[in-house]
Amino acid sequence: MVKLFADGGSRLNEKLQLVAVSARKAGQDRGVDLGAYRWVDDPVALASDPNIDVFVELIGGAGGVAKAAVEAALARGAHVVTANKALLAVHGAQLATLAERNGAKLLFEAAVGGGVPMVKALKESVAGSRASSVAGILNGTCNYILTEMENSGRSFEAVLAEAQSMGYAEADPTTDVGGFDAAHKLTILSAIAFGTRPDYEHVRIQGIERVTLTDIRLAAKLGYRIKLIAKGALADGAVEMHVRPACLSYDHPLASVNGSLNALVVDAEPSGQLTFIGRGAGEGPTAASVASDLIDLAEGRAGFAFGKPLSQLAAAPRATPAERGRYYLRLLVKDRPGVVAAISDRLAHEEISIESFLQMPVHSGPAVPIVLTTQTCSRAKIEAAVRAIEALDVVAEAPLLMPVEQAGQSWGRS
Amino acid sequence: MVKLFADGGSRLNEKLQLVAVSARKAGQDRGVDLGAYRWVDDPVALASDPNIDVFVELIGGAGGVAKAAVEAALARGAHVVTANKALLAVHGAQLATLAERNGAKLLFEAAVGGGVPMVKALKESVAGSRASSVAGILNGTCNYILTEMENSGRSFEAVLAEAQSMGYAEADPTTDVGGFDAAHKLTILSAIAFGTRPDYEHVRIQGIERVTLTDIRLAAKLGYRIKLIAKGALADGAVEMHVRPACLSYDHPLASVNGSLNALVVDAEPSGQLTFIGRGAGEGPTAASVASDLIDLAEGRAGFAFGKPLSQLAAAPRATPAERGRYYLRLLVKDRPGVVAAISDRLAHEEISIESFLQMPVHSGPAVPIVLTTQTCSRAKIEAAVRAIEALDVVAEAPLLMPVEQAGQSWGRS
Repeated sequence: MVKLFADGGSRLNEKLQLVAVSARKAGQDRGVDLGAYRWVDDPVALASDPNIDVFVELIGGAGGVAKAAVEAALARGAHVVTANKALLAVHGAQLATLAERNGAKLLFEAAVGGGVPMVKALKESVAGSRASSVAGILNGTCNYILTEMENSGRSFEAVLAEAQSMGYAEADPTTDVGGFDAAHKLTILSAIAFGTRPDYEHVRIQGIERVTLTDIRLAAKLGYRIKLIAKGALADGAVEMHVRPACLSYDHPLASVNGSLNALVVDAEPSGQLTFIGRGAGEGPTAASVASDLIDLAEGRAGFAFGKPLSQLAAAPRATPAERGRYYLRLLVKDRPGVVAAISDRLAHEEISIESFLQMPVHSGPAVPIVLTTQTCSRAKIEAAVRAIEALDVVAEAPLLMPVEQAGQSWGRS
Repeated sequence: MVKLFADGGSRLNEKLQLVAVSARKAGQDRGVDLGAYRWVDDPVALASDPNIDVFVELIGGAGGVAKAAVEAALARGAHVVTANKALLAVHGAQLATLAERNGAKLLFEAAVGGGVPMVKALKESVAGSRASSVAGILNGTCNYILTEMENSGRSFEAVLAEAQSMGYAEADPTTDVGGFDAAHKLTILSAIAFGTRPDYEHVRIQGIERVTLTDIRLAAKLGYRIKLIAKGALADGAVEMHVRPACLSYDHPLASVNGSLNALVVDAEPSGQLTFIGRGAGEGPTAASVASDLIDLAEGRAGFAFGKPLSQLAAAPRATPAERGRYYLRLLVKDRPGVVAAISDRLAHEEISIESFLQMPVHSGPAVPIVLTTQTCSRAKIEAAVRAIEALDVVAEAPLLMPVEQAGQSWGRS
């Protein structure tokens, strides 16, 4: 950010002036000379300074000093530009209310999708349409890990450790690999897309910790690539949101989004399906999105935080998803006669038809991986079958269940 | 458009009111009841009506009544929302000047990329970055034809005739298949992306008329898919723009954009590469983009036509491209001894190394197709070699030369 100002910016002009800077350590080398700017130790004091019209928050975290500083700025009518998805997902409605009451703007393009303008696209471009679903790859760390596992044939643990050593993953990776970061971002996008209040508690979250190299290899043999998908859908006025690993057919628009890239697919009418892809994190993309928010402020075109006044955002009923679809089920079983028959029996009992079945020889260990995909069935039935299968004493560990997603008509690419 | 109003719109609200409608035929069934709206036979009279604040132009054509009506509206300070890419490409600078002088806004999201918000993305989201290139699939008709040729194994002529019978292609297809429509759109996008005056005359244009089924099949054997690519690049302050068929490796972000979809890839720093994909034409996408422009007007956030005041747009020097790259060359030759040697000799004379060489048996006809790809060389040298090869009396018709584009590092997908 500071670098953009130091470089003279692109279209940042005289309307914007960097006044003061705050961070944990004053001395640290940030690649730019901060000597020309006032240093303030306490971010909340900086946000409270009446001489500052816009407060840029890049601290992070759903509470603590970030929340206090953002509240201090908004409370006195100063605009806030932030990249803090956790704060917005958990306290977005409260902060948007605070902003509106005090005539301040709250902008956060950098909070979701890094340099990809997902927030503006949903707030302004899709404003001429009605969105029925948003589905994305919103966490670059997870996508990097899954891509590296596939490309290098290394385990989840090995790739995660490497990502940590290179600074791509946090020392405590839970927020990323557990799906929570993607859920924060999905909460924000769903609120804007569907005109509903941000409702983080409502997101059903499953991370990628249990996706193994075996899953990636066997899914590939069946024609699928595993991705962590964050998806929100509006049906009959109710919103359903989940983050979970899924098996995507190779022609799915999100299947070829690899490495640390982020992407969003919006289904809307009458615009038709829209796909946005780009770098989801990092210094450059974050700075670019913060700068575009600052330009919107300078040009006087910043709107409401979630696209509408908060009073117009519906408190959408939480959908009880009567989900139907095809599923991928991976089991680790003891290699004994009758195992396959027992599994088939439990599926048949729930009237679930098997579409493909794959058992691969293993060279070591007592447990054998078995992977199957089902024909279309209800989520309730496959979950009941999985519970019954899990109870078999030949099953060596908890099964992994993932939805299978084809490109389908609505995805429009091939 | 009218349907959006008739349905009550999505976020279109009381701020916008449909006052009057004009079209060639009053009686035609448009799927909506226009009885509630005033009918005006002459679009220029409608645009001149002082009671109308916003004039929506969906007539088309670089001149004639469309230009007269848009000028009439802007001259009296009324805002214009248009989908007319030809008009903007050819007269964009003049119309933007007229708008600015009279305090009117000129918006045209629907002119490029149909429902995909390419214009807003470049004007506002990429405003925090510097764009170095824009590359896109901007003509859905060409992309549909190329995709159908590949999928169905039919000739260019057969697929075009079918597209015409289904209304996907015009009776005179020159504007589409000749690359001119894509060039109009590229002119607009380049102006916004690079902050330069729209300069349609500067686009080098090659259409898809000479791409044969043989090219599509042989390119596929070499690992490439043929697409009509519209590309603008900024280098050393000069802008280079061209529209031409190119061979894309399958991992290229535009290679999997099939059928009538449109897409744009923007290279910018610090945001990183951004990709936008969606429906590039049609009633729904056009209406959605027109509506988003109307909402921007209603919300008071519409900016300058090309992102900056026209006086700030540079008249960029036209680049003399010292292009280097890899090339695809398809020849039709008479099947005689020494042909391959003669071709190789002409390439060697220009110091061009062959990367791959493919000659396929044919069942009929006196001419044999030969396809080769080169290693990296200069455009000037390959063109000199092609001239020398074309002069050989064994060459049966003009060769087809296309650039080969890999995904490369900067494309970021795999």
